[in-house]
Amino acid sequence: MRFTMPQKVKFKHCDPAGIVFYPRYFEMINDCVEAFFDEGLEVPFEEVHRNGGVPTAEISVQFTAPSRHGDRLELSLTPTRLGRSSLGIRTEATCDGERRFVATSTLVLIDGQGKSTPWPDHLRAKLRGWIQQAAA
Amino acid sequence: MRFTMPQKVKFKHCDPAGIVFYPRYFEMINDCVEAFFDEGLEVPFEEVHRNGGVPTAEISVQFTAPSRHGDRLELSLTPTRLGRSSLGIRTEATCDGERRFVATSTLVLIDGQGKSTPWPDHLRAKLRGWIQQAAA
Amino acid sequence: MRFTMPQKVKFKHCDPAGIVFYPRYFEMINDCVEAFFDEGLEVPFEEVHRNGGVPTAEISVQFTAPSRHGDRLELSLTPTRLGRSSLGIRTEATCDGERRFVATSTLVLIDGQGKSTPWPDHLRAKLRGWIQQAAA
Amino acid sequence: MRFTMPQKVKFKHCDPAGIVFYPRYFEMINDCVEAFFDEGLEVPFEEVHRNGGVPTAEISVQFTAPSRHGDRLELSLTPTRLGRSSLGIRTEATCDGERRFVATSTLVLIDGQGKSTPWPDHLRAKLRGWIQQAAA
Repeated sequence: MRFTMPQKVKFKHCDPAGIVFYPRYFEMINDCVEAFFDEGLEVPFEEVHRNGGVPTAEISVQFTAPSRHGDRLELSLTPTRLGRSSLGIRTEATCDGERRFVATSTLVLIDGQGKSTPWPDHLRAKLRGWIQQAAA
Repeated sequence: MRFTMPQKVKFKHCDPAGIVFYPRYFEMINDCVEAFFDEGLEVPFEEVHRNGGVPTAEISVQFTAPSRHGDRLELSLTPTRLGRSSLGIRTEATCDGERRFVATSTLVLIDGQGKSTPWPDHLRAKLRGWIQQAAA
Repeated sequence: MRFTMPQKVKFKHCDPAGIVFYPRYFEMINDCVEAFFDEGLEVPFEEVHRNGGVPTAEISVQFTAPSRHGDRLELSLTPTRLGRSSLGIRTEATCDGERRFVATSTLVLIDGQGKSTPWPDHLRAKLRGWIQQAAA
Repeated sequence: MRFTMPQKVKFKHCDPAGIVFYPRYFEMINDCVEAFFDEGLEVPFEEVHRNGGVPTAEISVQFTAPSRHGDRLELSLTPTRLGRSSLGIRTEATCDGERRFVATSTLVLIDGQGKSTPWPDHLRAKLRGWIQQAAA
């Protein structure tokens, strides 16, 4: 199972070459993670940040085709690995079926002191559900 | 040989957790690439974009420690691989010797139609010089 | 008549004080202008930029109360003045009825050479309609 | 007396029209305020934010000419009005003597609870010095 988020390529995203400035893609990925917590896990992202956060520990992205102002992207996020306090995800963007980028990243749940902390049980259960459905 | 750029962590870079919002690191990396063309290769980045560009084809980053408002980072860029129209680079940020992130990425020289195009000889020679000195 | 756009305050919008970093508000305003062209005027913003644009010539904003991560803003845009090639607009953001900012700005239609150019008749008619309904 | 900060227009600042995307100007203005605290007032901006901040209460900007990738801007900041807890400033950007924008804004010093708080004496004295020299 994957979580999806529509994203129009807006004027603000584009560079002088008329294509998405790639750091903007990371904002889109971050927005998709936020929407996944809000809607996919039903834990508002702002609550996750009340006493901690989920910083990105590593990310690898391949930009396979440029995106232009007005393109209607679909971002899809798939949780892939669940650790004690980490989560592996795969985020892909497509436009009319053409892949624009694919990213794999690792998030880590931290507490208010910045230390990694285990996923609470209710989140762990939900994340496991997403991963099992993705693998099915 | 590596090219270095100082970068204070500014207010604009930081998120509610008080640390750098990671998409901002990609802007820093892009600024470092721009400075490398401007000063390291002596080809103003704006000229490179007159009829083409150097989009990033892929990038992998490990964020090894958080950076806070006021931290004085040093970004260092090392060209590592020279292809027909591609360039592999490694970008690292440190603060007082502590590594904050390390990125490996591939840039591709494109023409005004968005097609990959060979590095012109004068750039190829300069890039080869940087790579040889880095390996020495 | 006013055009409205919902906007959740996301993690990316917020600064170390936990409130919206004000330059991000200008991105929201720009997104709202883009949505107004797309949906309110039914002229995709990317088409407006095919051979020209609508740069902002001036803008004044009062930030009346801070916004926090998770706040559900409503941006409303009201066209107020129609010139030969200019458009005055007022953009306001509220959250549960509390005003967060109010902005007045002037956009100018320009051609591909960057010169101001008169609104084409079909856009002029639509803009006039919005202004008359706003005044009604 | 005015405080100045050089700013190259970088690739990241520019939009598909090849000119600075105006929300980026507000980041430049914010950077200039940060540099003014760091260097002009000798109070690191990160210290100001340890238990409070200096949010912008209002800002008005006129964009008088477009800026392009590679332009070497000079931003100059002039403190103009000192209130109990507010500061009026004027920020102007020029390129080779041509004005690109002029902004007037009001900052407010707030404490850790977000309430306006009087300028401490040492800052008040320094700010008064800047204002008197600007008027001289």
